[in-house]
Amino acid sequence: MTVSPFDHPILGGLLGDEEMKPSFAAEADGAAMLAFEAALARAQAAAGLIPSEAVGAIAAACAALRPDIAQLRSGMTRDGVPVPALVTALRAAVGQPHAAHIHFGATSQDAIDTALVLRLKPVLGVIDRRLAHLSEQLAGLAAREGHRIVMGRTRMQDALLIPLAHRIASWREPLVAHREHLAMLQPRLLVLQLGGAVGTLDKFGGKGGDVARAMASELGLTPPEAPWHTSRHRIVEFAGLLSLITGSLGKMGQDIALMAQTPVREVSLRTGGGSSAMPHKSNPVRAEALVTLARFNATLVGGVHQALVHENERSGAAWTLEWMLLPQMVMAAGASLRLAAELLRDLDFQTQ
Amino acid sequence: MTVSPFDHPILGGLLGDEEMKPSFAAEADGAAMLAFEAALARAQAAAGLIPSEAVGAIAAACAALRPDIAQLRSGMTRDGVPVPALVTALRAAVGQPHAAHIHFGATSQDAIDTALVLRLKPVLGVIDRRLAHLSEQLAGLAAREGHRIVMGRTRMQDALLIPLAHRIASWREPLVAHREHLAMLQPRLLVLQLGGAVGTLDKFGGKGGDVARAMASELGLTPPEAPWHTSRHRIVEFAGLLSLITGSLGKMGQDIALMAQTPVREVSLRTGGGSSAMPHKSNPVRAEALVTLARFNATLVGGVHQALVHENERSGAAWTLEWMLLPQMVMAAGASLRLAAELLRDLDFQTQ
Amino acid sequence: MTVSPFDHPILGGLLGDEEMKPSFAAEADGAAMLAFEAALARAQAAAGLIPSEAVGAIAAACAALRPDIAQLRSGMTRDGVPVPALVTALRAAVGQPHAAHIHFGATSQDAIDTALVLRLKPVLGVIDRRLAHLSEQLAGLAAREGHRIVMGRTRMQDALLIPLAHRIASWREPLVAHREHLAMLQPRLLVLQLGGAVGTLDKFGGKGGDVARAMASELGLTPPEAPWHTSRHRIVEFAGLLSLITGSLGKMGQDIALMAQTPVREVSLRTGGGSSAMPHKSNPVRAEALVTLARFNATLVGGVHQALVHENERSGAAWTLEWMLLPQMVMAAGASLRLAAELLRDLDFQTQ
Amino acid sequence: MTVSPFDHPILGGLLGDEEMKPSFAAEADGAAMLAFEAALARAQAAAGLIPSEAVGAIAAACAALRPDIAQLRSGMTRDGVPVPALVTALRAAVGQPHAAHIHFGATSQDAIDTALVLRLKPVLGVIDRRLAHLSEQLAGLAAREGHRIVMGRTRMQDALLIPLAHRIASWREPLVAHREHLAMLQPRLLVLQLGGAVGTLDKFGGKGGDVARAMASELGLTPPEAPWHTSRHRIVEFAGLLSLITGSLGKMGQDIALMAQTPVREVSLRTGGGSSAMPHKSNPVRAEALVTLARFNATLVGGVHQALVHENERSGAAWTLEWMLLPQMVMAAGASLRLAAELLRDLDFQTQ
Repeated sequence: MTVSPFDHPILGGLLGDEEMKPSFAAEADGAAMLAFEAALARAQAAAGLIPSEAVGAIAAACAALRPDIAQLRSGMTRDGVPVPALVTALRAAVGQPHAAHIHFGATSQDAIDTALVLRLKPVLGVIDRRLAHLSEQLAGLAAREGHRIVMGRTRMQDALLIPLAHRIASWREPLVAHREHLAMLQPRLLVLQLGGAVGTLDKFGGKGGDVARAMASELGLTPPEAPWHTSRHRIVEFAGLLSLITGSLGKMGQDIALMAQTPVREVSLRTGGGSSAMPHKSNPVRAEALVTLARFNATLVGGVHQALVHENERSGAAWTLEWMLLPQMVMAAGASLRLAAELLRDLDFQTQ
Repeated sequence: MTVSPFDHPILGGLLGDEEMKPSFAAEADGAAMLAFEAALARAQAAAGLIPSEAVGAIAAACAALRPDIAQLRSGMTRDGVPVPALVTALRAAVGQPHAAHIHFGATSQDAIDTALVLRLKPVLGVIDRRLAHLSEQLAGLAAREGHRIVMGRTRMQDALLIPLAHRIASWREPLVAHREHLAMLQPRLLVLQLGGAVGTLDKFGGKGGDVARAMASELGLTPPEAPWHTSRHRIVEFAGLLSLITGSLGKMGQDIALMAQTPVREVSLRTGGGSSAMPHKSNPVRAEALVTLARFNATLVGGVHQALVHENERSGAAWTLEWMLLPQMVMAAGASLRLAAELLRDLDFQTQ
Repeated sequence: MTVSPFDHPILGGLLGDEEMKPSFAAEADGAAMLAFEAALARAQAAAGLIPSEAVGAIAAACAALRPDIAQLRSGMTRDGVPVPALVTALRAAVGQPHAAHIHFGATSQDAIDTALVLRLKPVLGVIDRRLAHLSEQLAGLAAREGHRIVMGRTRMQDALLIPLAHRIASWREPLVAHREHLAMLQPRLLVLQLGGAVGTLDKFGGKGGDVARAMASELGLTPPEAPWHTSRHRIVEFAGLLSLITGSLGKMGQDIALMAQTPVREVSLRTGGGSSAMPHKSNPVRAEALVTLARFNATLVGGVHQALVHENERSGAAWTLEWMLLPQMVMAAGASLRLAAELLRDLDFQTQ
Repeated sequence: MTVSPFDHPILGGLLGDEEMKPSFAAEADGAAMLAFEAALARAQAAAGLIPSEAVGAIAAACAALRPDIAQLRSGMTRDGVPVPALVTALRAAVGQPHAAHIHFGATSQDAIDTALVLRLKPVLGVIDRRLAHLSEQLAGLAAREGHRIVMGRTRMQDALLIPLAHRIASWREPLVAHREHLAMLQPRLLVLQLGGAVGTLDKFGGKGGDVARAMASELGLTPPEAPWHTSRHRIVEFAGLLSLITGSLGKMGQDIALMAQTPVREVSLRTGGGSSAMPHKSNPVRAEALVTLARFNATLVGGVHQALVHENERSGAAWTLEWMLLPQMVMAAGASLRLAAELLRDLDFQTQ
């Protein structure tokens, strides 16, 4: 019963991505926020901000708690964030006397933003691996089929004959560049967020930096130079990269759909889609979907840029907009990378 | 386990809409496509295009069939549309000798586009009702509280005192206009689609018009003057209206968030959202969400316009893009209308 | 020395539109604002709000004044609107004792918004005329060439043969619908704006409605039911219509570019564009430009929707955004309509 | 007589940028394309591809020619690019026997794309310098005024008091990051384009690489690893950076507009904008314009991403879309950087 194409029971078969999806499950979000709370308690105890006796109970509860999703949902409805409800549940689980030391000096955004980058970490790994795989596939395709001569076309008109290797190289080059971009971005993106109520770490008695470094180390994140709660440019750069990836694959999809046109037939698809009216057809479904996903992310990326305009120390409006767009852009990039690999395996150049 | 904010187990508490959601369930889609197939068989039998003996079996199967979602999903993955898989299942359910008369002369797009408008019909009813309700709420609010004097502000600076009624009227006027727009659009939007493989109704032996009219009458839709499979302007106009609605409510939300600022306090919220760091706060969560949803739909509407560029008689790329965006825009409009009504009930002007 | 493709000395040859351009000249803006000031003075004198003796001098100055553009520019830089500088210049031209009665009770937005709709009036006429002309061209084309058989194509694959008339009809139908939409929108769009400082007509002593009706009658505009300074939905609906027009023509351009592909050659272009590298080529420049303009307006329309979110009684930020986008969308629609007519004249179906 | 806000005789006072504008003048474009042609001739002569005797005449003509803009305009109208007309004019200027060696083996896109990056070079210098200047301004502001205590605000509600230095630091940090991003991007963006008709350098007899390296060295550009005519990701990344810059400054503008609200008055503006209705007002015009420019670029950036989807070896449609959007995004970033510096000089914190 879902609106999203990525989660849709039917559409998800084409547009979903099973490997990306778990990062955006409510359970993953809850678990990542609890990992934040446990790391916070450990680091604060080490810094002498909370009693060390509290750590065991808090960490154990963070590990054991399976938050009641209905409770988080109603907290979300009321507060615009699920963290107050989660902290309430965690405090109940820990009980006295340690409950008061949970979430000390932190704010909802610390938990949510840190949980976001924790969940993006495996996502970045999947993207990197798939980009590498596609580059290899394309290199292999060029080696096997690149000697073929196809028509070079400019402005939708035949121009000069070119080796197929040339066109394949134009598909591959951006993917290599995107992988390098991702590697450069990763340490700047996967940064712990810790700021407290208004970003000043006011309850940390000057030990905010130590706590943040210890937490980052435990969670495998980059320690922050400063809180980034209102400074979303790394998120937006990541969204831009996701749309670059889908755009580059959309160009490849567009090329393949054009090459597979009946009167062109420079390539055919081994398992093209069928039609309910014309069973003989072989539709380039995946190639078209690559174009769709490119235009989808090109649409959403503008909204993520709109979300740069936070008001003062936190904008509920801008932040929520980011939540509505970024996970979908990740899923679209994931689906596009998956479909591209399937499409390349499906290409048949024998028909020429 | 969902990516979409509207379906999300947690976020959905703020951004979902229980009344809109059923229209976008996979089950509703399947049922609407089967309603199309049944109406097609009836109308074709009446026109002598298929044997009348087939109608009973086909209609009964359409009413009884609960399509296997996994099967539709794998059909979707393969064909880019679930219709071939659905027709296969339906033919199996009907069996010989009538199976061959199912989906006769129709194409996937006929079933999918008609199913879309069938599911939009209740959606339009909900939007209309909620717009009417909001107009009444605002009229009531103006009657009760409109005598109060608030500061008129231009370019974020105090200008002149105005009666609150004046600002409330500026919130209400667009909603009345949007309701009129919806009423004008409805008969042009809720139009049966029937074109066959390439939109020429080539297997209908000149009786396509009769069949379409009979089907439209049965299904409560406007009969088409021509197939609209590549002519998406009514869909795009509807998407524009959805974004106008969220935009107008976003303006109201922005105003209320500005009026509720601590040093302004022209209004307070009875049940503002809490903070994990500052329990005393009362955050204007719903007002901010109205801004978010306005910017969300303003982002997506551009993508729906991109989807106008179909290629020839059907574009898989453009059509799929529409599927990815339109349901989300409907949900955002639904959530916005719901939140606006809740927000208005939550306003407290006594604090002045 | 221009950034805009529409004004660009070189690009303007392809993307400009000489008939639309004058509406967006600084001189036209100045003249329209002066027409507003003259009509205001006349109507206010008739209502007894200013002395009738002042009208002659004010109207004469409004007719004669050629505002110093440099002065308006520096006023714009300082005030964010050119109206204070214009009113200062107008007062200097009128001199004592009547200068004090200029712009009485009005605000910058009254002059600017009314000047906008005054300048849109001829624009709407051009669009209507061109839509009508294109519909006729397409009807003529269908009559002359519609009997030809071309390949119907779905999802970029050959499907079934269709008469060319069928494809031409799919290009024509949206244009007829857009023209009807324009006719319905025109009276709601071309509405006088008059609100005074914060939209309450506070200096009009209850005669604001009379003044507005008299002004609207003189200026050939619809009298307002209420000021629309923060209620931009009609502007946004118009922007949506502009993008619907470019989108529908973009679909036609895409089709023609696909039909003109060398291995398809269902149509050729009598005067296709040349290449610096391959003089033999005949590039479908205008057909491609139709796609470009469709995607351009589909991009900008989202920004106009973002501009719905005004703050309180006037948002400098949102209003300025509208100014940056709407004229470009009009120009894109103008260029698209012009190019479409040229393209249709350029089509040659003999090559089949 | 211009549509563009950046070139507009009146609006340009607020939104234009005199230092950026020359890069987008038609004359600059012509000069840069001629610099490309001269460098091409020199490098091809050195590689033995054209006679060395031709170089002097070609280079002299490239230096002396002031292309007839009307001729380029009509070439643009016909060909969709001005290069064939420019080459014709250049050949006429050079005359026989050397004319034939002009533009040898090159294509329009080689000249246009290389001319683009040549003109972006000074643009990048201006952006870098202004980012550096703004960072210094903000550091100075923090040093002078940072000790003041202002209200920290989250979700539009008062939260905790913070030192002003904290908010200023949140404005400064992104600018430092954007400057680093620009430095990393510059060598990847300012890359010579040379590919010939379809990107294969087919007339260069294996010496394409040598020619490209020599040309890049002469023109101060990065030599290409491969032609990038259909690989626009660096352009799109640059557009993304432009929108990140305007977005970060938009956040600062939004903050200042909120801080300058009458009932907040944490800052006032020494030279705020005047109103035609309320002369006492001091409107935060520049702060609002920063928000406008942020939302403008956030709108356009999506269109640049759409333009990634080139067809085959050159897309007239996608490429032209890039031309329509990128210069405007540069101008918006330029205006935003200029306005931000002016705004910071205009802030007065004494009013607290």
